[in-house]
Amino acid sequence: MSAGESAGKRGARGPASASSSRQWAPYLEAGCGFKNHWYPALFSYELKDNEVKGVLIAGHEIALRRAKGKTYALQDRCLHRGVKMSRRPLCLSDELMTCWYHGYSYGLEDGVLRTIVASPDDPILGKVRIRTYPVEERNGTIFVFVGDEDYQPVPPLSSDLPLRIGADEDPNAVAYILDENVFVRGIHRTGNSNWRLAVENGYDPGHWLVHMGNTIIASADVLFPLGAQPVSDEAVRVVEEEEGPKGVMMMYNRPEAWNMVLENPLLGLKARGTKPYYLRTSMYLPGVLLVEHWPIPGWAQYEWYVPTDETHHEYWEVLVAHCRNEADLKDAEYRYKNVFEPLALRDFNDNDLFAREAMQDFYENGDGWNKETLCQLDNALTAWRKVASRYNRGIQDRPAGNGMNGGGNGHR
Amino acid sequence: MSAGESAGKRGARGPASASSSRQWAPYLEAGCGFKNHWYPALFSYELKDNEVKGVLIAGHEIALRRAKGKTYALQDRCLHRGVKMSRRPLCLSDELMTCWYHGYSYGLEDGVLRTIVASPDDPILGKVRIRTYPVEERNGTIFVFVGDEDYQPVPPLSSDLPLRIGADEDPNAVAYILDENVFVRGIHRTGNSNWRLAVENGYDPGHWLVHMGNTIIASADVLFPLGAQPVSDEAVRVVEEEEGPKGVMMMYNRPEAWNMVLENPLLGLKARGTKPYYLRTSMYLPGVLLVEHWPIPGWAQYEWYVPTDETHHEYWEVLVAHCRNEADLKDAEYRYKNVFEPLALRDFNDNDLFAREAMQDFYENGDGWNKETLCQLDNALTAWRKVASRYNRGIQDRPAGNGMNGGGNGHR
Amino acid sequence: MSAGESAGKRGARGPASASSSRQWAPYLEAGCGFKNHWYPALFSYELKDNEVKGVLIAGHEIALRRAKGKTYALQDRCLHRGVKMSRRPLCLSDELMTCWYHGYSYGLEDGVLRTIVASPDDPILGKVRIRTYPVEERNGTIFVFVGDEDYQPVPPLSSDLPLRIGADEDPNAVAYILDENVFVRGIHRTGNSNWRLAVENGYDPGHWLVHMGNTIIASADVLFPLGAQPVSDEAVRVVEEEEGPKGVMMMYNRPEAWNMVLENPLLGLKARGTKPYYLRTSMYLPGVLLVEHWPIPGWAQYEWYVPTDETHHEYWEVLVAHCRNEADLKDAEYRYKNVFEPLALRDFNDNDLFAREAMQDFYENGDGWNKETLCQLDNALTAWRKVASRYNRGIQDRPAGNGMNGGGNGHR
Repeated sequence: MSAGESAGKRGARGPASASSSRQWAPYLEAGCGFKNHWYPALFSYELKDNEVKGVLIAGHEIALRRAKGKTYALQDRCLHRGVKMSRRPLCLSDELMTCWYHGYSYGLEDGVLRTIVASPDDPILGKVRIRTYPVEERNGTIFVFVGDEDYQPVPPLSSDLPLRIGADEDPNAVAYILDENVFVRGIHRTGNSNWRLAVENGYDPGHWLVHMGNTIIASADVLFPLGAQPVSDEAVRVVEEEEGPKGVMMMYNRPEAWNMVLENPLLGLKARGTKPYYLRTSMYLPGVLLVEHWPIPGWAQYEWYVPTDETHHEYWEVLVAHCRNEADLKDAEYRYKNVFEPLALRDFNDNDLFAREAMQDFYENGDGWNKETLCQLDNALTAWRKVASRYNRGIQDRPAGNGMNGGGNGHR
Repeated sequence: MSAGESAGKRGARGPASASSSRQWAPYLEAGCGFKNHWYPALFSYELKDNEVKGVLIAGHEIALRRAKGKTYALQDRCLHRGVKMSRRPLCLSDELMTCWYHGYSYGLEDGVLRTIVASPDDPILGKVRIRTYPVEERNGTIFVFVGDEDYQPVPPLSSDLPLRIGADEDPNAVAYILDENVFVRGIHRTGNSNWRLAVENGYDPGHWLVHMGNTIIASADVLFPLGAQPVSDEAVRVVEEEEGPKGVMMMYNRPEAWNMVLENPLLGLKARGTKPYYLRTSMYLPGVLLVEHWPIPGWAQYEWYVPTDETHHEYWEVLVAHCRNEADLKDAEYRYKNVFEPLALRDFNDNDLFAREAMQDFYENGDGWNKETLCQLDNALTAWRKVASRYNRGIQDRPAGNGMNGGGNGHR
Repeated sequence: MSAGESAGKRGARGPASASSSRQWAPYLEAGCGFKNHWYPALFSYELKDNEVKGVLIAGHEIALRRAKGKTYALQDRCLHRGVKMSRRPLCLSDELMTCWYHGYSYGLEDGVLRTIVASPDDPILGKVRIRTYPVEERNGTIFVFVGDEDYQPVPPLSSDLPLRIGADEDPNAVAYILDENVFVRGIHRTGNSNWRLAVENGYDPGHWLVHMGNTIIASADVLFPLGAQPVSDEAVRVVEEEEGPKGVMMMYNRPEAWNMVLENPLLGLKARGTKPYYLRTSMYLPGVLLVEHWPIPGWAQYEWYVPTDETHHEYWEVLVAHCRNEADLKDAEYRYKNVFEPLALRDFNDNDLFAREAMQDFYENGDGWNKETLCQLDNALTAWRKVASRYNRGIQDRPAGNGMNGGGNGHR
């Protein structure tokens, strides 16, 4: 046995081989993310009227501006000398976005240059413009459609959101983020890894070891398996209806599809907790997780792993719950603030953030994708890679280096 | 209207076109600055007798040493193992600069290796040398002539200093930095941008928006226009007399040449202040600004944007005023310390430093120079670029990476 | 005399010429160190039972684990997703090293994958492995043999340790690190320079200027020369017996071989101290210094300059003294703690660390090796370079960038 021996001896169902990785070749190119998809940009409360804030999504520098309550998304580089307008927000008009440096002022709706502070009759007025991005603001979250400016038609937001399992399979359906009467609360923070490593960590049926002993599990005495082994082709369902979202669902609700591993004899390790607990995870394009019945039955956790640059993602963790009345809302708020945010979104998911960042250097230069040694548990992983490779709406190019990805110096 | 459309539709007087940018092609190569020019290195008070201090100018690492009151400038790399001598100043002799590591000792006047601490009879003594730089110390400032060692003759310091406007046009001339009986005080600090972005910010007639509301303006109730529009060919005067300094003067003193913009109707923006105020800005090679009658009439502000490396400059701000007697000097000192340094050099110019640094990433990889979208206000800018391209005494190469720019391992 | 003139005029015995540097060409390639040598990894007290700690040696990422008292060294990258196992130590078994992420568990002795926490029957079990490294733990120090996995036979640790001078030449021999009844204590810390600059600083007969006035010298009134000039071919002895360690010994004990320089008239500099003092320095492959009779007669200081990456080394400073009984040990401990650690290992050697780091940028891009200007004192230096070039057991490649140097994805 020596290093460098052929991979041909690997188990047939087990790790990835060179030929299988060809099935997700497009995914391997998507270091900057997929384009022509909807991504969350800010929570609504983070953008007050006449505020300007800059975000980076899949290499696109985007300035968000709220004016008279409406939210606009424009290229965050002034055409003149290339400064970011969001670096020094300046709101002089409800119709225009004005750059703080020389006062180039662009229409919020169309990005056309309308005036320059000290050159109100300049010949270039009306002749050049910055690009704009479609925006949807729903239930406290601002989503932006990021990609090619001429991509038409812009698909509905719902096509980039996870589906719940059908009522036929789970009559007690969790809350959906676009529903009316839902409580929606969460956080977002920067993760120091490529977005794909975050996705692959998010719903990984084999990574539960990192959560053993996490307080939210231990305090509820929930039976927490060592991991979940797929034991039939039903284990991972591919969701690929034509107009709908595309992704993979872990069918943990099917006892015949997954073997919940409760013991590893060689390591003398046993699952802790006594109360059997049911949840389910799904991963959808462009990289959004749904955990149904988490952190408690009836609630749902959404997670986005928004690509920023190749080595970072913005990690979004959002909890959604049905709230039919004021009392429900107060109760949800109480639980969120005192239990779920500190113990689920922070303590529990901090372990995931750690794991993603720990993978980063191995994958950063591209070799990890070829050198990884997958096992049976990774069938769920490869299912996602194939779906993502097949159904994405485009692969985002690397930005040019001056941060003008998707922007450019647009002329009429 | 879509991104990427031809620039051919731009206004004729307006933004730069590919053909116009060819007129300043040499300037675009000058990321490390122009060579064979005089640059300020330190204020005199910063170099005491037997002190050694290192500076970086246009990629040249230079050790300044004062011995018996005289200032010397030598290559700041010992020939032996390449350490910077300024990192651990060691002065054992008034005639020699001794490296702290093995004691290689070089003549202050000629850079020749004269002895080695533990090898006083070494065969290489007298056979190798480090290079030296011409130095001029005037009115509290140490200037070094940086460039090719064999450049001859070394031009006078005055050829790299700004000219005041002539007495025929302004009988109340401001103080000149080489005059006798002047008060000269200032600061220098590191700017995180290429030196050219600093120059272009310094005298920009269109950037006054960033200074609106600055305390030194507002407290004096000075009429501060939104910007200055050039309206005749007289607006920018090119200074190019054969032996003299080369540069551009903004002729703000000519009411027929510049339109002071007091209002932008579309933005509902009006100039503040009531007292009309006259100043003038000029920019000279190798990148030195003169603001006449600033911060008050009779005073002058000099600014150097000394190239250090491609992404930094040393920002020098120096105020000069006539001082005929001790009372004048006390008064100038009082104003400098309590008003001009905090409100002009710091508060007001902090905004400029911010703006330059905000441009840096757009220009850093070279694309900004081709992607910028200039307007009418930028005629002053392009005039400078042309003058700089035409009259510089050489373009500094990029340093080799080991900091030996302009140094090298000189042998006799 | 001008820069760039030919080096042909240099003194014949003096600086390196292009032809002489060809004699140590392999050394110039060894930026990541020499492979197939023994290096210190940790002090024994730094690795407690069931601890896992990661070290980087010559680009090899190595996880050290102690189980039931025995120390193991394994590749510090899990095969699965490439995380470092040492980042979150997890010890579930005395025979296995378990990765904290998914629980891939490898045999401590052979590195073979034995189980996966949630996939205890995975087909890849027993089919893949991580590599292991030979370990020797002696007198409080853990040494690892770093290099090619198939290098056979592994030479004894003693072949990579310095030799004392023979009893015929020094009847009062210092302690040897592998002796019984020795006191061994020290520190290690990161140096911000390539390991070769550290080596070349360590025993340099011309660098004593940086130690002038160091407290441990001055307080003992030791006669401290300005440097040592080699004056015969006996000055530097090459040690190259077939099975033994390879290196160079400075024969300071021979008065006819070295001229102790006590004065430099041109600089007016004289050696300080009155008590003549005898010590000797040697440098051995793979880069380990022995200073005999330092910091006091009978004691020895060992120093390793362990290559980590190309721009850093781990600087090991270890003092060794004979200790025949408990009283000796107490005395050694007292001196070490109160005098030798603060004044020798710290204060005195801090100056060396400073010097190495000061050389780094000059040598970092490779040019320093060609641009340096050596003098007579550097004969000792070039002797080492030749020995190192000739007798090393291999030159370590640069790591691939994902930290998998020497590791790789080993399959059976």
